[in-house]
Amino acid sequence: MRRIQMFMYTDIRVVPTMVVDRRSRNQAHGPSKLQITKNPKPKELPDLSTLKFGHTFTDHMLTIPWAVETGWGTPQIQPYGPLVLEPSSTVLHYAQTIFEGMKAYHDAEGRIRLFRPDMNMKRMNTSANRIALPTFDGVALLELIKELVRLDKHWIPKEPGHSLYIRPTLIGTQRAIGVSPPNEALLFVILSPVGPFYPNGFKPVALYGTTEFVRAAPGGTGAYKLGVNYAPGILPQKHAAKQGYAQNLWLHGPEHYLTEVGTMNLFVVFRKDGGSTFFSIPLEILMDSNFIYSGYELVTPPLDGMILPGVTRDSVLTLAREHASGAYTVPGLPEKLTITERPVTMKEVKKASESGTLVEMFGAGTAAVISPVDRIGYEGEDVLIPTGEDGMGPISRHIWTELIGRQTGTISSDWSVVI
Amino acid sequence: MRRIQMFMYTDIRVVPTMVVDRRSRNQAHGPSKLQITKNPKPKELPDLSTLKFGHTFTDHMLTIPWAVETGWGTPQIQPYGPLVLEPSSTVLHYAQTIFEGMKAYHDAEGRIRLFRPDMNMKRMNTSANRIALPTFDGVALLELIKELVRLDKHWIPKEPGHSLYIRPTLIGTQRAIGVSPPNEALLFVILSPVGPFYPNGFKPVALYGTTEFVRAAPGGTGAYKLGVNYAPGILPQKHAAKQGYAQNLWLHGPEHYLTEVGTMNLFVVFRKDGGSTFFSIPLEILMDSNFIYSGYELVTPPLDGMILPGVTRDSVLTLAREHASGAYTVPGLPEKLTITERPVTMKEVKKASESGTLVEMFGAGTAAVISPVDRIGYEGEDVLIPTGEDGMGPISRHIWTELIGRQTGTISSDWSVVI
Repeated sequence: MRRIQMFMYTDIRVVPTMVVDRRSRNQAHGPSKLQITKNPKPKELPDLSTLKFGHTFTDHMLTIPWAVETGWGTPQIQPYGPLVLEPSSTVLHYAQTIFEGMKAYHDAEGRIRLFRPDMNMKRMNTSANRIALPTFDGVALLELIKELVRLDKHWIPKEPGHSLYIRPTLIGTQRAIGVSPPNEALLFVILSPVGPFYPNGFKPVALYGTTEFVRAAPGGTGAYKLGVNYAPGILPQKHAAKQGYAQNLWLHGPEHYLTEVGTMNLFVVFRKDGGSTFFSIPLEILMDSNFIYSGYELVTPPLDGMILPGVTRDSVLTLAREHASGAYTVPGLPEKLTITERPVTMKEVKKASESGTLVEMFGAGTAAVISPVDRIGYEGEDVLIPTGEDGMGPISRHIWTELIGRQTGTISSDWSVVI
Repeated sequence: MRRIQMFMYTDIRVVPTMVVDRRSRNQAHGPSKLQITKNPKPKELPDLSTLKFGHTFTDHMLTIPWAVETGWGTPQIQPYGPLVLEPSSTVLHYAQTIFEGMKAYHDAEGRIRLFRPDMNMKRMNTSANRIALPTFDGVALLELIKELVRLDKHWIPKEPGHSLYIRPTLIGTQRAIGVSPPNEALLFVILSPVGPFYPNGFKPVALYGTTEFVRAAPGGTGAYKLGVNYAPGILPQKHAAKQGYAQNLWLHGPEHYLTEVGTMNLFVVFRKDGGSTFFSIPLEILMDSNFIYSGYELVTPPLDGMILPGVTRDSVLTLAREHASGAYTVPGLPEKLTITERPVTMKEVKKASESGTLVEMFGAGTAAVISPVDRIGYEGEDVLIPTGEDGMGPISRHIWTELIGRQTGTISSDWSVVI
């Protein structure tokens, strides 16, 4: 294991002027100095109506080089522009790259808010470790990201549903084509203003129950946010699209366990009316004194090594659990709610769809927040999933409202960080 | 599927001067023209005794851009140097990269030879298709690679065991961070002089029987030469090294099937003396009239979707089969030889090691050609593998000699292509 190395930037909260020394921007005195070079030619802000996810970038980016001998180098905020990489760079040959996705929002008071950014920093370090890239001080990186966002804050759209997507990325840049931990790496952060995922209201998507391709496998990398989990999904997505489905529903093993949806985590809601679905619930959950024998069951596949520990996934689970326990009330959410992380098979979903105990299904992720599903192409037929008139179901609708409220600051919570 | 698109370079064999128009190097008339810009500052040739695999590159590289609207652009041979990539490039975030590895050799007559390069070109197209990168005319690309190698031919070391490693790479360069087929890509080829993998004679390696990490899974990408199959293996390799083993032996499933060794294909040789190992051979192979009930069995795992279809793997199989059938004689190779592509479990290997019917085990790949194995750390103990005094076994030794002979032209064959 490579030891945790810091940018030597941990004091920024306490004495920011000592560390963010803008006067020394042309001097590289060491890793304790953030250097800022302002873009002399800022771009025109984009027409929000034409925004396409991840196609427009702001005026600046953050870069931090790393080398095995010297550790993390000087963080630089500089004009957004191309990277100069040796053709032998590890990332170009062996896919040594990890990334994160998070968002900055304008709140009603004109402040800027991030949503649970500490989780992204922690996960990014877990990812780095898995793929032999250097780890870092997540608190320090977050402070640097805040500096970058502040500098480009006029790029954050103020319109509802809009935000600034933040993309931290860490790549291996060793100038040699051996398959080994790199001796050089580069962390960079770019920003992209994005519009609402569903500009005209929620539009439930149809999924293709995919068994011929896998997203992840036991002992693989599915639980880490590595680049390698993404490009291999493009061909399966094209196959799904060709058959009229929007995304892949990744089914695992001969039991066809539901795992993830496209690049999102997955939730299913069953109605618990003492009926048939009980048989599919593991005994230890039924025996749990917190288990409610009526009402709704909100289910998501467990973090078994194949599931990405999504920030939105965790937020949905936490909100629902706090609501169910009475510790917090999510307005509108049914009282009788059981939350379980357990395996779900297509057999169970299909049976529930037929018996009327299937309530809803949705994807959860940073980009779309909540993405309702209305059918699954499975073994030659379509399994239908109920959706409400507005596209959402009785559980997701209220969780979504709460999440968006917390993200944009209309509902106060310690998940939202004003910067 | 994206259709096969060509560099419009197919006529080079017939009328090379029409296509490789060196006079027009500063003009971009379209994709039919290879432009060559010679390096004005050629480097000093390296001291061969200090060569480290993949660390030194020649004076030139080949680049060919691609865009969805215009297809493949003008191939350029230009001075080796950094690539300029947008920070939003698909390859940096989603690991959209594929590569190949092949070698050029100096023969005794001073000519330059490639080894079965058509196989690399075919496999690269298969890889491109799997990861939604553009496919290309493999014959045309090979001609361009030959041009590049000819230009830097003085970089090919003449010493025994040395060669020029050729690394074609294709990356997605779309300037947007959506997970989709890229609208831009870049194919580039770089060259690296390399020394013998075992400069002081064969040194058998110890493997760590790995069950906690997987290299590939059914429905995954293990059968394609994608970047994504490589970086995730670095951490497992570090784990293996920490326990005193050189490489991972990737074991699959509860049966612990042997799949690959590090980044090489795997071969096992059993002695068939009518003993116990018969029970582990599938009935259809035993029933095959070509099956020999005595002598040696050369086994490699079948191409079941988890195994890379290696060029060296195919060459070993083909040579052994031709020898066994009598169509060709590999000097020294035993007559009674059965060649099977079938699953092999650690249980079978361990049993054969204990009963004395295990003859040898070796990895096969372009970099090392043949890499003998002398033990496997498995479930807390070491399974011992016999090796000869020179490090090689009775099958690999003769196949290696034949392969090296064909690669360097001392044994004539149509596998070796003089350029």
